[in-house]
Amino acid sequence: MQSSDADPEYQRPDLPVSRRVSDLLDRMTVEEKAGQLVGTWAGQMHRAVDVEEVKDLVREQHLGCAAPFGWAGSTGTEVDEIVDIVNDLQAVATEETRLGIPLFFNVDAVHGHAYVAGSAVFPNGLGAAATWDPELVEAGARVTATEVAATGAHQNYGPTCDVGRDPRWGRVFETFGESPRLVTEMAAAKVRGYQGEGIEADDTVVATAKHFPAYSEPERGEDAAPVDVSEYKLRNTFVPPFEAALAEGVESVMPCYNSINGEPVHGSERWLTDLLRSDLGFDGTIVSDWGGVRHLTDDHKTAADLREATYDARTAGLDVASVGNDLEVEELVDLVESGDLAESVLDSSVERVLERKFRMGLFEDPYVEKDEALETVGSDDHQAAALETAREAMTLLKNDDCLPLSGDEDVFVGGPNADDLVSQVGGWSVEDEDHVDGTTIVEEIRAHVDGDVTHEQGATHNETLDVDAAAEQAAEADVAVLALGEGWYLHEFGAGDPRTETGEFPTRERLALGEAQQELVEAVAETGTPVVGVLVTGRPLAVEHLDERAAAVLMAYFPGTMGGKAVAETLVGENDPSGRLAVTVPRSGTQVDLHHDHLHQPRPIGDHEHPDSYDPLYEFGHGLSYTEFETGDLSVDEDVVGPGETVELDVTVENVGDRRGTEVVQAYSTTESKTLVMPERRLQAFERVELDAGESASVALEVPVENLGVYAPGDGHRVEAGDYDLVVDGESLTVTVDGDYL
Amino acid sequence: MQSSDADPEYQRPDLPVSRRVSDLLDRMTVEEKAGQLVGTWAGQMHRAVDVEEVKDLVREQHLGCAAPFGWAGSTGTEVDEIVDIVNDLQAVATEETRLGIPLFFNVDAVHGHAYVAGSAVFPNGLGAAATWDPELVEAGARVTATEVAATGAHQNYGPTCDVGRDPRWGRVFETFGESPRLVTEMAAAKVRGYQGEGIEADDTVVATAKHFPAYSEPERGEDAAPVDVSEYKLRNTFVPPFEAALAEGVESVMPCYNSINGEPVHGSERWLTDLLRSDLGFDGTIVSDWGGVRHLTDDHKTAADLREATYDARTAGLDVASVGNDLEVEELVDLVESGDLAESVLDSSVERVLERKFRMGLFEDPYVEKDEALETVGSDDHQAAALETAREAMTLLKNDDCLPLSGDEDVFVGGPNADDLVSQVGGWSVEDEDHVDGTTIVEEIRAHVDGDVTHEQGATHNETLDVDAAAEQAAEADVAVLALGEGWYLHEFGAGDPRTETGEFPTRERLALGEAQQELVEAVAETGTPVVGVLVTGRPLAVEHLDERAAAVLMAYFPGTMGGKAVAETLVGENDPSGRLAVTVPRSGTQVDLHHDHLHQPRPIGDHEHPDSYDPLYEFGHGLSYTEFETGDLSVDEDVVGPGETVELDVTVENVGDRRGTEVVQAYSTTESKTLVMPERRLQAFERVELDAGESASVALEVPVENLGVYAPGDGHRVEAGDYDLVVDGESLTVTVDGDYL
Repeated sequence: MQSSDADPEYQRPDLPVSRRVSDLLDRMTVEEKAGQLVGTWAGQMHRAVDVEEVKDLVREQHLGCAAPFGWAGSTGTEVDEIVDIVNDLQAVATEETRLGIPLFFNVDAVHGHAYVAGSAVFPNGLGAAATWDPELVEAGARVTATEVAATGAHQNYGPTCDVGRDPRWGRVFETFGESPRLVTEMAAAKVRGYQGEGIEADDTVVATAKHFPAYSEPERGEDAAPVDVSEYKLRNTFVPPFEAALAEGVESVMPCYNSINGEPVHGSERWLTDLLRSDLGFDGTIVSDWGGVRHLTDDHKTAADLREATYDARTAGLDVASVGNDLEVEELVDLVESGDLAESVLDSSVERVLERKFRMGLFEDPYVEKDEALETVGSDDHQAAALETAREAMTLLKNDDCLPLSGDEDVFVGGPNADDLVSQVGGWSVEDEDHVDGTTIVEEIRAHVDGDVTHEQGATHNETLDVDAAAEQAAEADVAVLALGEGWYLHEFGAGDPRTETGEFPTRERLALGEAQQELVEAVAETGTPVVGVLVTGRPLAVEHLDERAAAVLMAYFPGTMGGKAVAETLVGENDPSGRLAVTVPRSGTQVDLHHDHLHQPRPIGDHEHPDSYDPLYEFGHGLSYTEFETGDLSVDEDVVGPGETVELDVTVENVGDRRGTEVVQAYSTTESKTLVMPERRLQAFERVELDAGESASVALEVPVENLGVYAPGDGHRVEAGDYDLVVDGESLTVTVDGDYL
Repeated sequence: MQSSDADPEYQRPDLPVSRRVSDLLDRMTVEEKAGQLVGTWAGQMHRAVDVEEVKDLVREQHLGCAAPFGWAGSTGTEVDEIVDIVNDLQAVATEETRLGIPLFFNVDAVHGHAYVAGSAVFPNGLGAAATWDPELVEAGARVTATEVAATGAHQNYGPTCDVGRDPRWGRVFETFGESPRLVTEMAAAKVRGYQGEGIEADDTVVATAKHFPAYSEPERGEDAAPVDVSEYKLRNTFVPPFEAALAEGVESVMPCYNSINGEPVHGSERWLTDLLRSDLGFDGTIVSDWGGVRHLTDDHKTAADLREATYDARTAGLDVASVGNDLEVEELVDLVESGDLAESVLDSSVERVLERKFRMGLFEDPYVEKDEALETVGSDDHQAAALETAREAMTLLKNDDCLPLSGDEDVFVGGPNADDLVSQVGGWSVEDEDHVDGTTIVEEIRAHVDGDVTHEQGATHNETLDVDAAAEQAAEADVAVLALGEGWYLHEFGAGDPRTETGEFPTRERLALGEAQQELVEAVAETGTPVVGVLVTGRPLAVEHLDERAAAVLMAYFPGTMGGKAVAETLVGENDPSGRLAVTVPRSGTQVDLHHDHLHQPRPIGDHEHPDSYDPLYEFGHGLSYTEFETGDLSVDEDVVGPGETVELDVTVENVGDRRGTEVVQAYSTTESKTLVMPERRLQAFERVELDAGESASVALEVPVENLGVYAPGDGHRVEAGDYDLVVDGESLTVTVDGDYL
């Protein structure tokens, strides 16, 4: 589109964005403003909305954003159909509305553009975090942004900044685990990846830090259940990843569904305005998590009706109701026209929404090219990036001299996840195998092993199949690989078309593997053939039963399209398992709140009757390599440090084994005698190092002094004077902070 | 002792207490003041202290209180020896010190004076709460106070006001369960029982509301682990029982061991001064929980040394360091003499301590009579009160037409708790069977059944014994009674001389019965003889395994000295089981945070994939009778209510079965559309009603309107205008609160 001086100012790309925004805002009716602040889905949610209905909503209700593809129930799945929908809708918005404001499209591309057929699907959050490799995660997010942008979407509902503190929770696999430090690094990397150098570029998207500020430790592990949290814990455990995302310039933030301390976040001025806007200084868009506004009246019961819910959400600070549909537009208009809500509240939000549309160049060109989209989505480069992430995610939890395989063995393969692409990509991905462009574990074991490979599933996630046949085949083999775990699920272990009955594994009342899978393990283990358990799972399952029976256990998470290959490469030793747990694996489902960074505490009657506070099956940070490393010579450049400084640690790592491998060096801090109770230890810094056999390297680890402190309610972030120990692989040294500071 | 005008004022009972206090205070040195604020144990704690050492501490360090009997590791157990110790020590204090200030003795008589041989031991907290009978609990506390006072002690470290929210926690059995309302009623009853009409009377003691303000939902269910809680939850769930205890005039409060939101309570001005003294208006003594001061430096690591810990505790508001011993006296003296701590801080505490000693008449007569003590402790009347409480506590969880027994059956009795008095009284009682004046379950079954009674234990809590013999005997019987559960434990399932190895059941990582007990259940159930499971347990174990195999399940809690008799009477129907669960029994150990009064919440993807939020094995309030009741005709006197008013409900209950029995009528409230998220339902009122077959009665239930509201941070307790539903046994009616009020 060519513009000229005769065009309205908002249509002139030569003018500054702020001037175009204010010009357009001045021209808008209340109805048009309200429409820009409300979106709709196209597809199946609590009711079906088709693309034609979206067009009507755009024409008649002035809706400004939509989600017709790229999420669980969306209309479009194939790239060519998505491009047609996008271009169709943009034509309606720009040509059939009074002001011609282009539409803004949102997607749930949380681990790749995974709701689009043929896309490169990366390991989910817990797997990505297990790489302890923020650069790789950033590169993966760049790939995702490129795919999302190529299909015409503008905002991605990620990264997840939630710190995963409850293994029961059905969304824990979306998180980067339990450590605020690790989640912070990963969330920041994802923002950089999605937004690149800025959303003005063609291959970038608006990132959405979610779910603000504390979603991930719900009561009962139940999705969207209330979170009860002190300011101390909120600011030290849950908020830091959001602060990091903000520091990276994240353009959007999404509130969590739940209430915190009795206040539903979508309707809370305290959380959205006081905390997010005032304390943390966020000025981007705050977009609802799908039905977050409607929940205020329907579910939290803090609003009498949708009108009151809309009022509460808008006065709380919400800019966009993601799927508010015509109903929320009408409520907004009525609130303003009745005088109950100041039009200026709408104006501030509309300014933010329009500003992003201008900066992304939508007024100049809202359309996408089908050929480019087809070429981009799931390209070889993108799949290679997914493979590299899956490789680095592989976390070897146990190995009794069983792995790696030589490749000459006869291998039996069983279990529900050995040949199931949909389980392998996991939730937040297409559910139709035909749409997943990947290979399964059994396919790739066949490709990587010279011996005979037999396969008998033996069990689904929940039901035994031919266990006897599985055991018979296993008995004939040199090793039995059982790919176990969970299937595809969303939120609370379900979806639009649930694969399991409510109450069946997985559930939040059971953290062990399902009975059928345990039976399969038992039958195969009884043959005497060594068992390798491969866990394809979202939640960190309490697999003590498997651990007791298997010679090796490999945690694969939901490893994505290339996950089958990464697993097979790891089993045969082509890939050294360099993943490390980003979350604690408990011994039993009763240990649902075990974290490496628990606080100091008394043991009133004495240690002899007080089992360890932290006694999991596998610790946070755990993961074996096929080689051995020795770490030593821990040193620090300056052992007295002050405000703004960084502790520079140095440590020598040597590969003392007989093969190339990767170590993840981890530095933890501990301290005593501070005003507030501190963690017994907590992760501070980490670095991957890949070494040949016999090679050694000096590894530098940086700990900004401010990270040694805590947020103290009333005072803000504070580093207290005194000694802090830094511990790497059992060796420790002390640094002294010289004087308190805030 | 006769007093005259020539005596110093503080020795003159004719003068007002306040004048005696100020006279004595004026005479005291800093050392003498410090001594009054510190106590010692006599017995085995982290080191042994004998009575001679206590005498020296009194003579040389001016110690004002001591605990030589009535707790787990104490020196004295038999009444006659206790009386001698008491009189001996009082003689030293009054005759061998400059000012002759008598000693103050503290005990842990939490369910009877149970650390004293031969005492009447009542069911522990969960069992007492299951009676839903505050009058009975008050009467039991009166009995306890009488026994405690008769042995010369002045303060009882109870009632437990903690709301039991974590079934893993080793102290949950000491609580009155999960409902703030029920705990509030029971805690108030206990204060009334202990303190009677006032501590001036001979048969009353100072009650201690503990453990302030939030101890009972520790991380990991680990004793004394940190509690993280919002003000909203703190004030609505945990603080109300303390407010009720204060309203009853409780004379003392004990802080909890743990930190809350990063602040160890024993060193926290926020919790002890701002909340307890200023907001709640408490002016009694604040006494440390045993080593609570020392923990600040040794465990919480918020104080550099004991001197700093002492400073923190005193400035926080602590009056008495219960077992501070000579060390804390010396630190206190040093703090004052160095000018770091104002002497006035000591003075305020000394005034409170002396005031109680004067009011209790200790300056006139600190001694006790041996004959009276021997006659009082464990008297027939007292044991009868313990029996009545145990009877009302019996909670029938399941009954497939199996109970009551006719009495003619041949009965097999097995399980670790069938013939074990120490397990039957449970923790916070003497551990030596010879000191327990009670009868066991098997003894009482023999006494109550005419058929043959065989007994084979079959399993300890943790190890199988002769399971085959048990199964063989069970096969011959008409019914098999298995008394299962836990043994004696304190805090974290241990004690000075732990009965189980660390890591064995019971632990906080396992909420199911131990394997050995499950094997016994399995073997006996396989004989086809109907199994009656009797649970003698502290924690609400996740007994789905038993529930699936037993024809009946009777929850007996730790029922005390008369518990064997109460169980047998219930099995044969002499006692109708009228206990109702005061706590939720989960299906699995993974359901550790299931409560009847959870808050409203969204279920984002839809109910079909979202298992119930509250889906326990047995619900809060559950308990079967041997007869059937119908409840109906719910009515209210006024359906529009305002500030200060009470909703008067009326409901008709009819015994429609064929035998006499007791129903516990329960009223719950629900509400919608309030500013803060409200519980889906919560207990508001309850009433026991005993009816003959065919009899009906009108039952009145009172709900003060203020109980319909919540504490709103920033505003205080608030009742919002609008509708509230009150539900009794499925029937509901609506009352309208007319206008908001605080």
